[in-house]
Amino acid sequence: MPGEFDLIHWIRAQQTTSDLVKLAAGDDLAILKWPSNDLLLVGCDQVLDGVHFDSTVHPARAIGRKAMNRNLSDCAAMACLPAAALVSVALPKGRDIEYAKELYLGIKEAGDKFDCAIVGGETGTWDGKLALTISILGRSDGIAPVPRGGAKPGNFLYVTGPLGGSLLGRHMTFEPRVALARQLAKGNWRLTSMIDLSDGLSRDLRQICNASGLGAWVNATAVPIHEDAIEMRRDGRAPLEHALHDGEDYELLFTSPDPDVTPAILIGAIVSDPGTWLVMKDRSRVPLEPKGWEHTF
Amino acid sequence: MPGEFDLIHWIRAQQTTSDLVKLAAGDDLAILKWPSNDLLLVGCDQVLDGVHFDSTVHPARAIGRKAMNRNLSDCAAMACLPAAALVSVALPKGRDIEYAKELYLGIKEAGDKFDCAIVGGETGTWDGKLALTISILGRSDGIAPVPRGGAKPGNFLYVTGPLGGSLLGRHMTFEPRVALARQLAKGNWRLTSMIDLSDGLSRDLRQICNASGLGAWVNATAVPIHEDAIEMRRDGRAPLEHALHDGEDYELLFTSPDPDVTPAILIGAIVSDPGTWLVMKDRSRVPLEPKGWEHTF
Repeated sequence: MPGEFDLIHWIRAQQTTSDLVKLAAGDDLAILKWPSNDLLLVGCDQVLDGVHFDSTVHPARAIGRKAMNRNLSDCAAMACLPAAALVSVALPKGRDIEYAKELYLGIKEAGDKFDCAIVGGETGTWDGKLALTISILGRSDGIAPVPRGGAKPGNFLYVTGPLGGSLLGRHMTFEPRVALARQLAKGNWRLTSMIDLSDGLSRDLRQICNASGLGAWVNATAVPIHEDAIEMRRDGRAPLEHALHDGEDYELLFTSPDPDVTPAILIGAIVSDPGTWLVMKDRSRVPLEPKGWEHTF
Repeated sequence: MPGEFDLIHWIRAQQTTSDLVKLAAGDDLAILKWPSNDLLLVGCDQVLDGVHFDSTVHPARAIGRKAMNRNLSDCAAMACLPAAALVSVALPKGRDIEYAKELYLGIKEAGDKFDCAIVGGETGTWDGKLALTISILGRSDGIAPVPRGGAKPGNFLYVTGPLGGSLLGRHMTFEPRVALARQLAKGNWRLTSMIDLSDGLSRDLRQICNASGLGAWVNATAVPIHEDAIEMRRDGRAPLEHALHDGEDYELLFTSPDPDVTPAILIGAIVSDPGTWLVMKDRSRVPLEPKGWEHTF
Protein backbone atom coordinates (compact mmCIF):
# COMPACT_ATOMS: atom_id res chain seq x y z
CA MET A 1 0.00 0.00 0.00
CA PRO A 2 1.45 3.40 -0.87
CA GLY A 3 1.85 5.27 2.37
CA GLU A 4 1.74 2.18 4.54
CA PHE A 5 4.61 3.45 6.63
CA ASP A 6 2.88 6.81 7.00
CA LEU A 7 -0.09 4.92 8.38
CA ILE A 8 2.05 3.01 10.86
CA HIS A 9 3.60 6.26 12.09
CA TRP A 10 0.21 7.87 12.34
CA ILE A 11 -1.20 4.97 14.35
CA ARG A 12 1.76 5.04 16.73
CA ALA A 13 1.24 8.76 17.30
CA GLN A 14 -2.38 8.08 18.29
CA GLN A 15 -1.54 5.50 20.90
CA THR A 16 -2.71 5.98 24.41
CA THR A 17 -0.44 4.77 27.18
CA SER A 18 -1.34 2.40 29.97
CA ASP A 19 0.38 1.27 33.13
CA LEU A 20 0.32 -2.26 31.78
CA VAL A 21 2.22 -1.42 28.62
CA LYS A 22 6.01 -1.46 28.82
CA LEU A 23 6.60 -1.31 25.06
CA ALA A 24 3.72 -0.49 22.73
CA ALA A 25 3.12 -1.35 19.08
CA GLY A 26 6.05 -0.81 16.75
CA ASP A 27 8.26 -3.74 17.64
CA ASP A 28 7.67 -7.36 16.63
CA LEU A 29 5.49 -7.72 19.72
CA ALA A 30 4.24 -5.35 22.39
CA ILE A 31 5.48 -5.95 25.93
CA LEU A 32 3.04 -5.87 28.83
CA LYS A 33 3.48 -6.47 32.54
CA TRP A 34 0.34 -8.18 33.75
CA PRO A 35 -0.74 -7.37 37.32
CA SER A 36 0.09 -10.47 39.35
CA ASN A 37 -3.28 -10.59 41.10
CA ASP A 38 -5.25 -10.38 37.87
CA LEU A 39 -6.45 -13.16 35.67
CA LEU A 40 -5.82 -12.56 31.96
CA LEU A 41 -8.87 -13.03 29.73
CA VAL A 42 -8.32 -13.28 25.98
CA GLY A 43 -10.41 -13.72 22.86
CA CYS A 44 -10.81 -12.52 19.32
CA ASP A 45 -13.61 -11.53 17.01
CA GLN A 46 -13.70 -10.64 13.34
CA VAL A 47 -16.13 -8.50 11.36
CA LEU A 48 -16.49 -9.21 7.65
CA ASP A 49 -17.87 -7.08 4.84
CA GLY A 50 -21.30 -8.38 3.81
CA VAL A 51 -21.76 -10.35 7.03
CA HIS A 52 -21.37 -7.96 9.97
CA PHE A 53 -21.43 -4.69 8.04
CA ASP A 54 -21.86 -3.41 4.50
CA SER A 55 -18.98 -1.21 3.40
CA THR A 56 -21.16 0.38 0.69
CA VAL A 57 -23.56 1.62 3.38
CA HIS A 58 -21.70 1.96 6.68
CA PRO A 59 -18.96 4.56 7.15
CA ALA A 60 -15.47 3.35 8.01
CA ARG A 61 -15.58 4.87 11.48
CA ALA A 62 -18.79 3.00 12.33
CA ILE A 63 -17.26 -0.26 11.06
CA GLY A 64 -14.19 0.24 13.25
CA ARG A 65 -16.36 1.05 16.26
CA LYS A 66 -18.45 -2.07 15.78
CA ALA A 67 -15.38 -4.30 15.46
CA MET A 68 -14.05 -3.00 18.78
CA ASN A 69 -17.41 -2.95 20.55
CA ARG A 70 -18.03 -6.62 19.77
CA ASN A 71 -14.82 -7.47 21.58
CA LEU A 72 -15.65 -5.15 24.47
CA SER A 73 -19.01 -6.89 24.69
CA ASP A 74 -17.15 -10.20 25.14
CA CYS A 75 -15.39 -8.59 28.09
CA ALA A 76 -18.78 -7.55 29.47
CA ALA A 77 -19.99 -11.15 29.09
CA MET A 78 -17.18 -12.29 31.42
CA ALA A 79 -17.47 -9.23 33.70
CA CYS A 80 -13.82 -8.37 33.11
CA LEU A 81 -12.18 -5.03 32.47
CA PRO A 82 -10.92 -4.42 28.89
CA ALA A 83 -7.21 -3.69 29.03
CA ALA A 84 -5.54 -4.00 25.63
CA ALA A 85 -6.38 -4.83 22.02
CA LEU A 86 -4.61 -5.97 18.85
CA VAL A 87 -6.02 -4.95 15.48
CA SER A 88 -5.65 -6.58 12.05
CA VAL A 89 -7.15 -4.97 8.98
CA ALA A 90 -7.36 -6.58 5.53
CA LEU A 91 -7.95 -3.54 3.35
CA PRO A 92 -9.20 -3.80 -0.25
CA LYS A 93 -6.80 -2.34 -2.80
CA GLY A 94 -8.12 1.04 -3.85
CA ARG A 95 -9.16 2.12 -0.33
CA ASP A 96 -6.90 5.01 0.60
CA ILE A 97 -4.99 5.81 3.74
CA GLU A 98 -7.75 8.17 4.91
CA TYR A 99 -10.18 5.26 4.91
CA ALA A 100 -7.79 3.16 6.98
CA LYS A 101 -7.40 6.05 9.44
CA GLU A 102 -11.18 6.31 9.80
CA LEU A 103 -11.39 2.59 10.59
CA TYR A 104 -8.68 3.00 13.16
CA LEU A 105 -10.30 6.10 14.70
CA GLY A 106 -13.55 4.17 15.11
CA ILE A 107 -11.67 1.36 16.85
CA LYS A 108 -9.86 3.84 19.07
CA GLU A 109 -12.99 5.83 19.96
CA ALA A 110 -14.68 2.65 21.14
CA GLY A 111 -11.60 1.49 23.06
CA ASP A 112 -10.90 4.84 24.69
CA LYS A 113 -14.26 4.80 26.47
CA PHE A 114 -12.97 1.83 28.46
CA ASP A 115 -9.29 2.82 28.70
CA CYS A 116 -8.50 -0.10 26.42
CA ALA A 117 -5.12 0.56 24.79
CA ILE A 118 -4.40 -0.60 21.24
CA VAL A 119 -1.01 -2.24 21.62
CA GLY A 120 -0.42 -3.74 18.22
CA GLY A 121 -1.72 -4.64 14.85
CA GLU A 122 -1.25 -4.62 11.16
CA THR A 123 -2.85 -3.34 8.01
CA GLY A 124 -2.45 -5.35 4.82
CA THR A 125 -3.92 -4.56 1.44
CA TRP A 126 -5.28 -7.26 -0.81
CA ASP A 127 -7.43 -7.96 -3.79
CA GLY A 128 -10.25 -8.97 -1.42
CA LYS A 129 -12.95 -7.48 0.75
CA LEU A 130 -12.66 -5.57 4.00
CA ALA A 131 -12.12 -7.69 7.11
CA LEU A 132 -11.20 -6.53 10.64
CA THR A 133 -10.02 -8.85 13.38
CA ILE A 134 -9.53 -7.62 16.91
CA SER A 135 -8.09 -9.58 19.80
CA ILE A 136 -8.85 -8.36 23.28
CA LEU A 137 -7.08 -8.77 26.61
CA GLY A 138 -9.15 -8.25 29.73
CA ARG A 139 -8.30 -8.25 33.44
CA SER A 140 -10.30 -9.65 36.30
CA ASP A 141 -9.29 -6.69 38.56
CA GLY A 142 -10.90 -7.95 41.72
CA ILE A 143 -14.00 -9.54 40.18
CA ALA A 144 -14.16 -13.25 39.39
CA PRO A 145 -14.91 -13.88 35.71
CA VAL A 146 -18.46 -15.11 35.05
CA PRO A 147 -18.37 -18.12 32.73
CA ARG A 148 -21.20 -19.58 30.65
CA GLY A 149 -21.28 -22.90 32.40
CA GLY A 150 -22.09 -22.06 36.02
CA ALA A 151 -25.92 -21.98 35.98
CA LYS A 152 -27.74 -24.12 38.57
CA PRO A 153 -31.29 -25.53 38.57
CA GLY A 154 -33.66 -23.00 40.08
CA ASN A 155 -31.50 -20.04 39.05
CA PHE A 156 -33.38 -17.08 37.67
CA LEU A 157 -32.73 -15.93 34.12
CA TYR A 158 -32.19 -12.24 33.43
CA VAL A 159 -31.58 -9.95 30.47
CA THR A 160 -30.26 -6.39 30.67
CA GLY A 161 -32.41 -4.66 28.06
CA PRO A 162 -35.02 -4.87 25.31
CA LEU A 163 -34.36 -7.18 22.40
CA GLY A 164 -35.00 -7.52 18.68
CA GLY A 165 -34.75 -5.57 15.46
CA SER A 166 -31.09 -4.57 15.83
CA LEU A 167 -30.72 -4.70 12.05
CA LEU A 168 -32.53 -1.35 11.86
CA GLY A 169 -29.27 0.17 13.05
CA ARG A 170 -28.46 -0.81 16.64
CA HIS A 171 -26.16 -3.60 15.46
CA MET A 172 -23.75 -0.83 14.42
CA THR A 173 -24.26 1.57 17.32
CA PHE A 174 -24.71 -0.53 20.48
CA GLU A 175 -22.80 0.25 23.67
CA PRO A 176 -21.04 -2.72 25.27
CA ARG A 177 -22.41 -3.40 28.77
CA VAL A 178 -19.03 -3.48 30.49
CA ALA A 179 -19.91 -1.13 33.36
CA LEU A 180 -23.23 -2.87 34.03
CA ALA A 181 -21.57 -6.29 33.97
CA ARG A 182 -18.99 -5.16 36.52
CA GLN A 183 -21.70 -3.62 38.69
CA LEU A 184 -23.74 -6.83 38.58
CA ALA A 185 -20.80 -9.12 39.27
CA LYS A 186 -19.45 -7.16 42.22
CA GLY A 187 -22.84 -6.10 43.59
CA ASN A 188 -25.25 -7.59 46.05
CA TRP A 189 -26.14 -10.45 43.76
CA ARG A 190 -24.54 -13.75 42.87
CA LEU A 191 -24.05 -14.29 39.14
CA THR A 192 -23.63 -17.92 38.12
CA SER A 193 -23.36 -17.65 34.33
CA MET A 194 -23.39 -14.91 31.68
CA ILE A 195 -23.19 -14.39 27.91
CA ASP A 196 -23.65 -11.41 25.63
CA LEU A 197 -26.50 -11.66 23.13
CA SER A 198 -24.81 -11.67 19.76
CA ASP A 199 -26.50 -14.63 18.05
CA GLY A 200 -29.98 -14.06 19.47
CA LEU A 201 -31.63 -15.04 22.76
CA SER A 202 -32.76 -18.48 21.56
CA ARG A 203 -29.25 -19.44 20.44
CA ASP A 204 -27.25 -17.81 23.21
CA LEU A 205 -29.51 -19.28 25.90
CA ARG A 206 -28.64 -22.70 24.48
CA GLN A 207 -24.97 -21.87 25.00
CA ILE A 208 -25.59 -21.28 28.71
CA CYS A 209 -27.76 -24.40 28.98
CA ASN A 210 -25.32 -26.63 27.10
CA ALA A 211 -22.31 -25.33 29.02
CA SER A 212 -24.17 -25.83 32.31
CA GLY A 213 -25.76 -29.18 31.30
CA LEU A 214 -29.24 -27.85 32.06
CA GLY A 215 -32.40 -26.48 30.45
CA ALA A 216 -34.38 -23.25 30.71
CA TRP A 217 -37.89 -21.88 30.64
CA VAL A 218 -38.48 -18.42 29.23
CA ASN A 219 -41.64 -16.54 30.11
CA ALA A 220 -42.99 -15.23 26.79
CA THR A 221 -44.76 -12.26 28.38
CA ALA A 222 -41.64 -11.23 30.28
CA VAL A 223 -39.25 -10.92 27.34
CA PRO A 224 -38.57 -7.20 26.88
CA ILE A 225 -39.29 -6.21 23.30
CA HIS A 226 -37.36 -3.37 21.67
CA GLU A 227 -39.31 -0.80 19.68
CA ASP A 228 -37.19 -1.80 16.68
CA ALA A 229 -38.70 -5.29 16.94
CA ILE A 230 -42.16 -3.75 16.75
CA GLU A 231 -41.10 -1.65 13.79
CA MET A 232 -39.79 -4.79 12.06
CA ARG A 233 -43.20 -6.47 12.37
CA ARG A 234 -43.55 -5.24 8.79
CA ASP A 235 -41.57 -8.26 7.61
CA GLY A 236 -44.39 -10.59 8.79
CA ARG A 237 -42.65 -11.89 11.92
CA ALA A 238 -44.16 -10.95 15.28
CA PRO A 239 -42.16 -8.62 17.56
CA LEU A 240 -41.68 -11.48 20.05
CA GLU A 241 -40.12 -13.58 17.28
CA HIS A 242 -37.67 -10.77 16.59
CA ALA A 243 -36.87 -10.42 20.30
CA LEU A 244 -36.26 -14.16 20.68
CA HIS A 245 -34.26 -14.82 17.54
CA ASP A 246 -32.67 -11.67 16.14
CA GLY A 247 -28.99 -11.37 16.82
CA GLU A 248 -26.70 -8.51 17.76
CA ASP A 249 -28.57 -7.05 20.71
CA TYR A 250 -25.38 -7.10 22.78
CA GLU A 251 -27.41 -7.06 25.97
CA LEU A 252 -26.31 -9.50 28.66
CA LEU A 253 -28.12 -12.74 29.46
CA PHE A 254 -27.24 -14.12 32.90
CA THR A 255 -28.38 -16.38 35.71
CA SER A 256 -28.53 -15.86 39.46
CA PRO A 257 -30.03 -17.63 42.49
CA ASP A 258 -31.23 -14.20 43.58
CA PRO A 259 -34.78 -13.17 42.62
CA ASP A 260 -34.18 -9.44 42.95
CA VAL A 261 -31.44 -8.45 40.51
CA THR A 262 -32.98 -5.04 40.01
CA PRO A 263 -30.72 -3.64 37.27
CA ALA A 264 -31.98 -6.41 34.95
CA ILE A 265 -35.23 -7.92 33.74
CA LEU A 266 -36.35 -11.35 34.98
CA ILE A 267 -37.42 -13.47 32.02
CA GLY A 268 -37.31 -17.10 33.15
CA ALA A 269 -35.57 -19.83 35.09
CA ILE A 270 -33.00 -22.61 34.75
CA VAL A 271 -34.31 -26.18 35.14
CA SER A 272 -32.71 -29.61 35.43
CA ASP A 273 -34.33 -31.03 32.31
CA PRO A 274 -32.38 -30.23 29.16
CA GLY A 275 -33.99 -28.20 26.40
CA THR A 276 -35.23 -24.63 26.18
CA TRP A 277 -38.93 -23.84 26.41
CA LEU A 278 -41.14 -20.83 25.97
CA VAL A 279 -43.94 -20.55 28.57
CA MET A 280 -46.95 -18.85 26.98
CA LYS A 281 -49.53 -16.57 28.61
CA ASP A 282 -51.93 -19.55 29.00
CA ARG A 283 -49.12 -21.50 30.73
CA SER A 284 -48.68 -23.86 27.80
CA ARG A 285 -45.08 -24.69 26.86
CA VAL A 286 -43.66 -24.63 23.35
CA PRO A 287 -40.11 -25.55 22.41
CA LEU A 288 -37.84 -22.52 22.03
CA GLU A 289 -35.83 -23.59 19.00
CA PRO A 290 -32.62 -21.71 18.23
CA LYS A 291 -33.34 -19.66 15.15
CA GLY A 292 -30.73 -16.97 15.48
CA TRP A 293 -29.92 -15.98 11.95
CA GLU A 294 -26.93 -14.64 10.16
CA HIS A 295 -26.95 -11.28 8.51
CA THR A 296 -26.93 -11.30 4.78
CA PHE A 297 -26.96 -7.84 3.28
CA MET B 1 -21.93 -22.28 7.75
CA PRO B 2 -23.61 -25.68 7.87
CA GLY B 3 -21.82 -27.65 10.53
CA GLU B 4 -20.27 -24.64 12.20
CA PHE B 5 -21.11 -26.02 15.61
CA ASP B 6 -19.62 -29.37 14.64
CA LEU B 7 -16.43 -27.53 13.81
CA ILE B 8 -16.40 -25.72 17.13
CA HIS B 9 -16.82 -29.01 18.99
CA TRP B 10 -14.12 -30.62 16.90
CA ILE B 11 -11.70 -27.75 17.60
CA ARG B 12 -12.38 -27.94 21.33
CA ALA B 13 -11.67 -31.67 21.30
CA GLN B 14 -8.27 -30.99 19.71
CA GLN B 15 -7.18 -28.51 22.32
CA THR B 16 -4.00 -29.08 24.23
CA THR B 17 -3.90 -28.00 27.83
CA SER B 18 -1.37 -25.74 29.44
CA ASP B 19 -0.58 -24.74 33.00
CA LEU B 20 -1.37 -21.18 32.06
CA VAL B 21 -4.89 -21.92 30.88
CA LYS B 22 -7.64 -21.92 33.50
CA LEU B 23 -10.54 -21.97 31.03
CA ALA B 24 -9.88 -22.66 27.34
CA ALA B 25 -11.80 -21.68 24.24
CA GLY B 26 -15.55 -22.17 24.38
CA ASP B 27 -16.60 -19.30 26.58
CA ASP B 28 -16.76 -15.66 25.54
CA LEU B 29 -13.10 -15.36 26.47
CA ALA B 30 -10.44 -17.82 27.60
CA ILE B 31 -9.06 -17.34 31.12
CA LEU B 32 -5.31 -17.49 31.72
CA LYS B 33 -3.22 -17.03 34.81
CA TRP B 34 -0.03 -15.31 33.75
CA PRO B 35 3.09 -16.21 35.72
CA SER B 36 3.82 -13.21 37.91
CA ASN B 37 7.52 -13.11 37.05
CA ASP B 38 6.91 -13.19 33.31
CA LEU B 39 6.43 -10.31 30.94
CA LEU B 40 3.52 -10.80 28.53
CA LEU B 41 4.38 -10.23 24.86
CA VAL B 42 1.53 -9.87 22.39
CA GLY B 43 1.09 -9.31 18.68
CA CYS B 44 -0.94 -10.38 15.70
CA ASP B 45 -0.32 -11.26 12.10
CA GLN B 46 -2.66 -12.02 9.23
CA VAL B 47 -2.13 -14.05 6.06
CA LEU B 48 -4.27 -13.20 3.05
CA ASP B 49 -5.07 -15.23 -0.05
CA GLY B 50 -3.14 -13.85 -3.02
CA VAL B 51 -0.66 -11.99 -0.82
CA HIS B 52 0.92 -14.49 1.59
CA PHE B 53 -0.32 -17.69 -0.03
CA ASP B 54 -2.31 -18.83 -3.02
CA SER B 55 -5.26 -21.03 -2.07
CA THR B 56 -5.37 -22.49 -5.58
CA VAL B 57 -1.80 -23.80 -5.15
CA HIS B 58 -1.09 -24.27 -1.45
CA PRO B 59 -2.90 -26.93 0.61
CA ALA B 60 -4.97 -25.79 3.57
CA ARG B 61 -2.64 -27.42 6.06
CA ALA B 62 0.37 -25.54 4.68
CA ILE B 63 -1.58 -22.27 4.84
CA GLY B 64 -2.48 -22.89 8.48
CA ARG B 65 1.12 -23.75 9.31
CA LYS B 66 2.42 -20.58 7.70
CA ALA B 67 -0.10 -18.40 9.53
CA MET B 68 1.04 -19.82 12.87
CA ASN B 69 4.74 -19.89 12.02
CA ARG B 70 4.75 -16.19 11.15
CA ASN B 71 3.50 -15.44 14.65
CA LEU B 72 5.99 -17.85 16.20
CA SER B 73 8.71 -16.07 14.24
CA ASP B 74 7.62 -12.81 15.90
CA CYS B 75 8.20 -14.53 19.23
CA ALA B 76 11.65 -15.55 18.02
CA ALA B 77 12.36 -11.94 17.08
CA MET B 78 11.76 -10.91 20.71
CA ALA B 79 13.45 -14.04 22.14
CA CYS B 80 10.29 -14.93 24.04
CA LEU B 81 8.58 -18.28 24.51
CA PRO B 82 5.29 -18.78 22.60
CA ALA B 83 2.55 -19.58 25.11
CA ALA B 84 -0.93 -19.17 23.64
CA ALA B 85 -2.63 -18.20 20.39
CA LEU B 86 -6.03 -16.98 19.18
CA VAL B 87 -7.16 -17.87 15.67
CA SER B 88 -9.67 -16.13 13.36
CA VAL B 89 -10.54 -17.62 10.00
CA ALA B 90 -12.60 -15.88 7.30
CA LEU B 91 -13.62 -18.83 5.15
CA PRO B 92 -15.02 -18.43 1.62
CA LYS B 93 -18.51 -19.84 1.20
CA GLY B 94 -18.24 -23.17 -0.55
CA ARG B 95 -15.19 -24.34 1.39
CA ASP B 96 -16.33 -27.28 3.48
CA ILE B 97 -15.73 -28.23 7.07
CA GLU B 98 -12.90 -30.58 6.09
CA TYR B 99 -11.03 -27.66 4.57
CA ALA B 100 -11.48 -25.68 7.79
CA LYS B 101 -10.20 -28.63 9.81
CA GLU B 102 -7.10 -28.87 7.61
CA LEU B 103 -6.38 -25.18 8.19
CA TYR B 104 -6.76 -25.73 11.91
CA LEU B 105 -4.56 -28.84 11.90
CA GLY B 106 -1.81 -26.87 10.17
CA ILE B 107 -2.07 -24.15 12.80
CA LYS B 108 -2.04 -26.73 15.59
CA GLU B 109 0.89 -28.70 14.15
CA ALA B 110 3.00 -25.56 14.05
CA GLY B 111 1.93 -24.49 17.55
CA ASP B 112 2.42 -27.90 19.13
CA LYS B 113 6.12 -27.87 18.29
CA PHE B 114 6.47 -24.99 20.73
CA ASP B 115 3.83 -26.03 23.28
CA CYS B 116 1.79 -23.05 22.17
CA ALA B 117 -1.86 -23.68 23.12
CA ILE B 118 -4.69 -22.42 20.95
CA VAL B 119 -7.00 -20.84 23.49
CA GLY B 120 -9.66 -19.23 21.35
CA GLY B 121 -10.84 -18.20 17.97
CA GLU B 122 -13.62 -18.15 15.48
CA THR B 123 -14.45 -19.26 12.00
CA GLY B 124 -16.81 -17.16 9.92
CA THR B 125 -17.91 -17.79 6.36
CA TRP B 126 -18.29 -15.01 3.85
CA ASP B 127 -18.59 -14.17 0.23
CA GLY B 128 -14.91 -13.22 0.23
CA LYS B 129 -11.45 -14.75 0.05
CA LEU B 130 -9.59 -16.78 2.64
CA ALA B 131 -7.95 -14.78 5.44
CA LEU B 132 -6.37 -16.06 8.66
CA THR B 133 -5.47 -13.84 11.59
CA ILE B 134 -3.54 -15.20 14.55
CA SER B 135 -2.72 -13.36 17.74
CA ILE B 136 0.11 -14.67 19.83
CA LEU B 137 0.94 -14.40 23.52
CA GLY B 138 4.54 -15.00 24.51
CA ARG B 139 6.30 -15.12 27.88
CA SER B 140 9.71 -13.79 28.81
CA ASP B 141 10.38 -16.82 31.07
CA GLY B 142 13.68 -15.66 32.46
CA ILE B 143 15.05 -13.99 29.33
CA ALA B 144 14.70 -10.25 28.76
CA PRO B 145 12.87 -9.50 25.48
CA VAL B 146 15.14 -8.19 22.72
CA PRO B 147 13.61 -5.09 21.10
CA ARG B 148 14.40 -3.54 17.73
CA GLY B 149 15.63 -0.27 19.13
CA GLY B 150 18.60 -1.22 21.28
CA ALA B 151 21.46 -1.27 18.77
CA LYS B 152 24.56 0.81 19.60
CA PRO B 153 27.26 2.28 17.34
CA GLY B 154 30.01 -0.28 16.88
CA ASN B 155 27.67 -3.24 17.40
CA PHE B 156 28.17 -6.13 15.04
CA LEU B 157 25.35 -7.16 12.73
CA TYR B 158 24.45 -10.83 12.43
CA VAL B 159 22.04 -13.03 10.52
CA THR B 160 21.13 -16.61 11.42
CA GLY B 161 21.03 -18.23 7.98
CA PRO B 162 21.24 -17.89 4.21
CA LEU B 163 18.85 -15.49 2.50
CA GLY B 164 16.91 -15.03 -0.73
CA GLY B 165 14.60 -16.87 -3.04
CA SER B 166 12.06 -17.94 -0.41
CA LEU B 167 9.32 -17.70 -3.04
CA LEU B 168 10.53 -21.01 -4.48
CA GLY B 169 8.83 -22.61 -1.49
CA ARG B 170 10.55 -21.76 1.78
CA HIS B 171 8.08 -18.96 2.47
CA MET B 172 5.52 -21.71 3.17
CA THR B 173 7.78 -24.20 4.96
CA PHE B 174 10.22 -22.21 7.13
CA GLU B 175 10.83 -23.11 10.75
CA PRO B 176 10.59 -20.23 13.22
CA ARG B 177 13.90 -19.63 15.00
CA VAL B 178 12.47 -19.65 18.51
CA ALA B 179 14.98 -22.08 20.04
CA LEU B 180 17.95 -20.33 18.44
CA ALA B 181 16.68 -16.93 19.58
CA ARG B 182 16.37 -18.18 23.16
CA GLN B 183 19.83 -19.75 22.99
CA LEU B 184 21.35 -16.52 21.68
CA ALA B 185 19.59 -14.28 24.19
CA LYS B 186 20.47 -16.35 27.24
CA GLY B 187 23.90 -17.41 26.04
CA ASN B 188 27.36 -15.98 26.38
CA TRP B 189 26.57 -13.01 24.17
CA ARG B 190 24.81 -9.72 24.64
CA LEU B 191 22.02 -9.08 22.13
CA THR B 192 21.09 -5.42 21.75
CA SER B 193 18.41 -5.57 19.04
CA MET B 194 16.68 -8.20 16.93
CA ILE B 195 14.06 -8.61 14.19
CA ASP B 196 12.88 -11.52 12.07
CA LEU B 197 13.43 -11.15 8.33
CA SER B 198 9.94 -11.05 6.88
CA ASP B 199 10.14 -8.01 4.59
CA GLY B 200 13.70 -8.57 3.37
CA LEU B 201 17.10 -7.69 4.82
CA SER B 202 17.23 -4.20 3.28
CA ARG B 203 13.85 -3.26 4.75
CA ASP B 204 14.12 -4.99 8.10
CA LEU B 205 17.61 -3.58 8.72
CA ARG B 206 16.08 -0.13 8.32
CA GLN B 207 13.61 -1.01 11.07
CA ILE B 208 16.47 -1.72 13.46
CA CYS B 209 18.34 1.41 12.35
CA ASN B 210 15.30 3.67 12.59
CA ALA B 211 14.25 2.28 15.97
CA SER B 212 17.81 2.70 17.25
CA GLY B 213 18.41 6.09 15.58
CA LEU B 214 21.51 4.79 13.84
CA GLY B 215 22.85 3.51 10.50
CA ALA B 216 24.48 0.30 9.30
CA TRP B 217 27.07 -1.04 6.93
CA VAL B 218 26.55 -4.43 5.35
CA ASN B 219 29.50 -6.31 3.90
CA ALA B 220 28.37 -7.49 0.44
CA THR B 221 30.71 -10.48 0.43
CA ALA B 222 29.56 -11.63 3.87
CA VAL B 223 25.82 -11.86 3.18
CA PRO B 224 24.96 -15.58 3.14
CA ILE B 225 23.17 -16.45 -0.07
CA HIS B 226 20.62 -19.25 -0.13
CA GLU B 227 20.77 -21.73 -3.01
CA ASP B 228 17.21 -20.66 -3.85
CA ALA B 229 18.56 -17.16 -4.52
CA ILE B 230 21.06 -18.65 -6.98
CA GLU B 231 18.29 -20.66 -8.59
CA MET B 232 16.22 -17.48 -8.95
CA ARG B 233 19.02 -15.77 -10.87
CA ARG B 234 16.96 -16.87 -13.89
CA ASP B 235 14.72 -13.82 -13.37
CA GLY B 236 17.62 -11.50 -14.23
CA ARG B 237 18.37 -10.35 -10.68
CA ALA B 238 21.70 -11.38 -9.15
CA PRO B 239 21.66 -13.81 -6.19
CA LEU B 240 22.93 -11.04 -3.90
CA GLU B 241 19.98 -8.88 -4.92
CA HIS B 242 17.63 -11.68 -3.93
CA ALA B 243 19.43 -12.16 -0.63
CA LEU B 244 19.26 -8.44 0.18
CA HIS B 245 15.71 -7.71 -0.86
CA ASP B 246 13.56 -10.84 -0.98
CA GLY B 247 11.19 -11.20 1.91
CA GLU B 248 10.03 -14.12 4.03
CA ASP B 249 13.36 -15.65 4.99
CA TYR B 250 12.29 -15.70 8.66
CA GLU B 251 15.89 -15.82 9.74
CA LEU B 252 16.86 -13.47 12.58
CA LEU B 253 18.80 -10.25 12.11
CA PHE B 254 20.38 -8.99 15.31
CA THR B 255 23.10 -6.80 16.79
CA SER B 256 25.63 -7.44 19.52
CA PRO B 257 28.75 -5.75 20.89
CA ASP B 258 30.35 -9.21 20.83
CA PRO B 259 32.42 -10.16 17.76
CA ASP B 260 32.14 -13.91 18.27
CA VAL B 261 28.45 -14.86 18.18
CA THR B 262 29.26 -18.22 16.68
CA PRO B 263 25.75 -19.58 16.02
CA ALA B 264 25.22 -16.73 13.55
CA ILE B 265 26.92 -15.11 10.53
CA LEU B 266 28.61 -11.71 10.88
CA ILE B 267 27.51 -9.47 8.00
CA GLY B 268 28.21 -5.91 9.05
CA ALA B 269 28.18 -3.26 11.74
CA ILE B 270 26.05 -0.50 13.24
CA VAL B 271 27.32 3.06 12.79
CA SER B 272 26.34 6.47 14.18
CA ASP B 273 25.56 8.01 10.81
CA PRO B 274 22.02 7.29 9.65
CA GLY B 275 21.43 5.36 6.46
CA THR B 276 22.19 1.82 5.35
CA TRP B 277 25.13 1.06 3.09
CA LEU B 278 26.49 -1.90 1.23
CA VAL B 279 30.30 -2.22 1.35
CA MET B 280 31.53 -3.84 -1.85
CA LYS B 281 34.52 -6.11 -2.37
CA ASP B 282 36.64 -3.12 -3.54
CA ARG B 283 35.65 -1.29 -0.33
CA SER B 284 33.46 1.18 -2.19
CA ARG B 285 30.12 1.96 -0.56
CA VAL B 286 26.74 2.03 -2.29
CA PRO B 287 23.44 2.93 -0.65
CA LEU B 288 21.43 -0.10 0.43
CA GLU B 289 17.96 1.03 -0.50
CA PRO B 290 15.01 -0.86 0.96
CA LYS B 291 13.52 -2.80 -1.91
CA GLY B 292 11.69 -5.52 -0.02
CA TRP B 293 8.79 -6.40 -2.22
CA GLU B 294 5.34 -7.72 -1.69
CA HIS B 295 4.23 -11.01 -3.08
CA THR B 296 1.77 -10.87 -5.90
CA PHE B 297 0.80 -14.27 -7.14
